[in-house]
Amino acid sequence: MSTTRLDIDALTTALADLNALGQGGWSLSGDQLCKTFIFPDFVRAFGFMTQVALIAEAMDHHPDWSNAYAHVRVALSTHEAGGITERDVELAWHMERLSSRG
Amino acid sequence: MSTTRLDIDALTTALADLNALGQGGWSLSGDQLCKTFIFPDFVRAFGFMTQVALIAEAMDHHPDWSNAYAHVRVALSTHEAGGITERDVELAWHMERLSSRG
Repeated sequence: MSTTRLDIDALTTALADLNALGQGGWSLSGDQLCKTFIFPDFVRAFGFMTQVALIAEAMDHHPDWSNAYAHVRVALSTHEAGGITERDVELAWHMERLSSRG
Repeated sequence: MSTTRLDIDALTTALADLNALGQGGWSLSGDQLCKTFIFPDFVRAFGFMTQVALIAEAMDHHPDWSNAYAHVRVALSTHEAGGITERDVELAWHMERLSSRG
């Protein structure tokens, strides 16, 4: 998995795919790929985080994220690349997959 | 457990106790009781969050918090009281207890 920072074309395509083929809501904020997931309650929100945590640890690639009750805000970037890489896009897709099974 | 907002004297005492009898690092930020916990790695950090999540759900009182790798930033307040209550102090003590067991 490449840790090269995605160029603007690759990033635009990745973002469009995430929003078209996933549940939407992804955006760019500075050098981070971001989304706020909203669940029915805290148990569902933290259950999602727990599933993502296991994947993230296995990938050795961890999100910056925050949680307030049923909301989970994620901000993905690859620190050593100074921006968004394929690894962030891969983690985003895992999040889409896991959140849709709520 | 009272959900009355703590007055400044009660809050000062609670904060002093947390920092003197716990591991320290608690501060007030606006209407929130805050601390940044730092762990050796993500597994320890998320393990802490998982333990706190179970307690928080049982208390029906949930933290606002964020995580970036080994760092967990918590911000406790009681929304319906518009500030910090005994429930926040109780949750802070649970966090102290759980974080000290690594």
